[in-house]
Amino acid sequence: MTAGHFWCDFALVDGEVVSDVAITVVDGRFDSITPNAPTHADATHLNGFTIPGLANAHSHAFQRALRSRTQRGSGSFWTWRDLMYRAADRLDPELYLRLARATFAEMVASGITTVGEFHYLHHGPGGARYEVPNIMGDAVLAAADEAGLRITLLDVLYLHGGLTDGRYLPLSEAQKRFGDGSVDVWADRVGRLTSNDRHRVGAAIHSVRAVDPVAMGECVVWASQQGASLHAHVSEQVAENDECQAIHSMTPVALLESVGALGPAFVAVHATHVNGDDIGLLAESNSAVCLCPTTERDLGDGIVDSRQMVDAGVPIVLGSDSHAVIDLFDEAHAVEMDQRQRTRSRGVHPAGDLLAMATTAGHRSLGWNDVGSLETGQRADLVTVGLDSVRTAGVAAGGLVEATVFAAGAVDVSDVIVDGRHIVSEGQHRHIDVASELSITISELMDR
Amino acid sequence: MTAGHFWCDFALVDGEVVSDVAITVVDGRFDSITPNAPTHADATHLNGFTIPGLANAHSHAFQRALRSRTQRGSGSFWTWRDLMYRAADRLDPELYLRLARATFAEMVASGITTVGEFHYLHHGPGGARYEVPNIMGDAVLAAADEAGLRITLLDVLYLHGGLTDGRYLPLSEAQKRFGDGSVDVWADRVGRLTSNDRHRVGAAIHSVRAVDPVAMGECVVWASQQGASLHAHVSEQVAENDECQAIHSMTPVALLESVGALGPAFVAVHATHVNGDDIGLLAESNSAVCLCPTTERDLGDGIVDSRQMVDAGVPIVLGSDSHAVIDLFDEAHAVEMDQRQRTRSRGVHPAGDLLAMATTAGHRSLGWNDVGSLETGQRADLVTVGLDSVRTAGVAAGGLVEATVFAAGAVDVSDVIVDGRHIVSEGQHRHIDVASELSITISELMDR
Repeated sequence: MTAGHFWCDFALVDGEVVSDVAITVVDGRFDSITPNAPTHADATHLNGFTIPGLANAHSHAFQRALRSRTQRGSGSFWTWRDLMYRAADRLDPELYLRLARATFAEMVASGITTVGEFHYLHHGPGGARYEVPNIMGDAVLAAADEAGLRITLLDVLYLHGGLTDGRYLPLSEAQKRFGDGSVDVWADRVGRLTSNDRHRVGAAIHSVRAVDPVAMGECVVWASQQGASLHAHVSEQVAENDECQAIHSMTPVALLESVGALGPAFVAVHATHVNGDDIGLLAESNSAVCLCPTTERDLGDGIVDSRQMVDAGVPIVLGSDSHAVIDLFDEAHAVEMDQRQRTRSRGVHPAGDLLAMATTAGHRSLGWNDVGSLETGQRADLVTVGLDSVRTAGVAAGGLVEATVFAAGAVDVSDVIVDGRHIVSEGQHRHIDVASELSITISELMDR
Repeated sequence: MTAGHFWCDFALVDGEVVSDVAITVVDGRFDSITPNAPTHADATHLNGFTIPGLANAHSHAFQRALRSRTQRGSGSFWTWRDLMYRAADRLDPELYLRLARATFAEMVASGITTVGEFHYLHHGPGGARYEVPNIMGDAVLAAADEAGLRITLLDVLYLHGGLTDGRYLPLSEAQKRFGDGSVDVWADRVGRLTSNDRHRVGAAIHSVRAVDPVAMGECVVWASQQGASLHAHVSEQVAENDECQAIHSMTPVALLESVGALGPAFVAVHATHVNGDDIGLLAESNSAVCLCPTTERDLGDGIVDSRQMVDAGVPIVLGSDSHAVIDLFDEAHAVEMDQRQRTRSRGVHPAGDLLAMATTAGHRSLGWNDVGSLETGQRADLVTVGLDSVRTAGVAAGGLVEATVFAAGAVDVSDVIVDGRHIVSEGQHRHIDVASELSITISELMDR
């Protein structure tokens, strides 16, 4: 039995900011959380505002390599995708592991303690099968272990190359790495991955462009039998809606509903161009929506009415997606800023709700119900935000949640504890030189 | 004669990224700039990408105290303004100096070497006259000197409390501090401020809400006689347009044009709700527009078509305005992100254009034509952006301008040189503990 003691200047407990908080951790879980406590001689002092671990509900780790490199010339989501495919095509399992490890380490340093990796780089270039069928997925899992965070590997079903003129296209050369050929082969491969105390295996339907309804239905059955999370890219682009309507006479959400995909385990990623009926279907089924606002801005996707979703009862979670930025405070802030511009009013989402999207709700959407709040019995994830940087100096002691969402950034995270293990201190990952590993691996991938 | 030597890994010269750049500074100006040069034994090594100094073209320094403190509950621009007035009401000259000094020091640490302070806190609470009429303006100038940046004090003419139901309102109690009573009294007071090598005095018309056309005209004449910059808040809110139309049957831009305000010295701040004719008037007159996207998002102002402005020939400059964020890279990034969401296409403004908004164009809009580019004879302002943070690691050596706008932030600024003086090194202001001064002064203002 391992035990640890922490003492926080301020901490977020039951949605309230409390001070002088003594925390005891036993076997990676909170054993006691005591506000207004004297400090403990052996306690690690967490200097600032301590919040639950953050959950990054939608990640494509390898896209970290594209940061700022896709910012030349003009174009669209679709021209951006061509650049992304070129990077994906060059990855082998060893480089994928190192790039994902560095990217996940950047995440941990920013306060992320669980990542949902939407993983579709299954096979070799041109679709060649590796001798070990899950060698790429195993690389992602190992990367998470080494970086020190928890992972839900959302293994992606990807069968078709698109949906155009009312028919499914064959996979393009670049897409052949993503495809298992059939949902049975996919299920067989994914079935060999195992969940454990730090790994969950979940399922993902890439999108209505890449998976036909029959295959969707089988994927849904598999996920349901496994009790696994089920994520899907949904209505990120208007073109996707149009193609789906043309062939199925339904919206993507309605199509997913028709195959039984919606439910408490389902997460609609983006959901940018959904309509009121779609939101109703998501709400009735207790599905969640994952917004990725910094990526959606970068790709010019558009802005959804997130207030309408919340009012309908749809939980919102957050993802850094393409990793143009890795900063969940920035994502939470961006959700609110985009709504202010859309509605021309302030305070659309309260700060506490925005932070909950990044913590409790996010973990739940990845299948971790025992992470995301400071409660006895929950897994001991802690993230400390410094209150003495040039960004956070001067915030109100009575408004630390507002300060965290509206003034702080990932760079203000000083300490990160995952399952009671102290992974980040003084703003630095304790075991990984993050910037150096990013620089080396990205250069290997992109500049060779 | 003072001289200094710098050596940059990479620098932006004539819009191009060059490497191994030796720079000699004599009497605060660039004496030589030599790419592909050997390093000099006495040279200060600037490790990263060195760009010109940034210009913050629109600042209300005291509003730094509101960061994250106005983020409770819901509301509008107008409810936010009530909170802002409450803070303004409590400032005295001594606290104003200390708060502005800390805020300006945060700016310098973020790479800003010139600030345009849109200054309207002229008088005592309730409008009581200070014995020294410019004691508040002098405080701002002194704050800039102490923080180490150059300033254009845009002294604001503020005569009326608003424009409602077709008439000008008297100043409210909170607004009485801002008002000189008449344009003549304003001109007499402002005439006592003097420009020097580090200070420019400019004029500002607060808005069409606060200044009637006759007074505007006299202000324009004064600015023209002095060769001073002339700034005005323009069409930030739809309500302002509506009120202006109701009384003057013109848009704010057309009204300003009718009194002769437009021209190369004029900057329309925000210009969020201008129409095509307004943009035509701004373009024909060689006026500039100052966008403040992080503040405009925070206040839910709306998004203007900045591409249309650039295509018409209107220079765009940037300001951090309310200082919800102080990060001109973030402002430049936000201009592009907002356009992508508006147009659903990428690459609306090239990265080089976005950086020019924050540098060359910004300085020009504040009356400093000899700052903002790395050229022999220009004032020696240098800002070095580190390329080895978790944010910037992995960017392309051939894409450093894109990296600066799309991956870096204020926190990546390692060195800042103003007029040849090294004010910031290793990311820290050399003379001021910025966070501590912010914390102390803001607490004095807001928590007492």
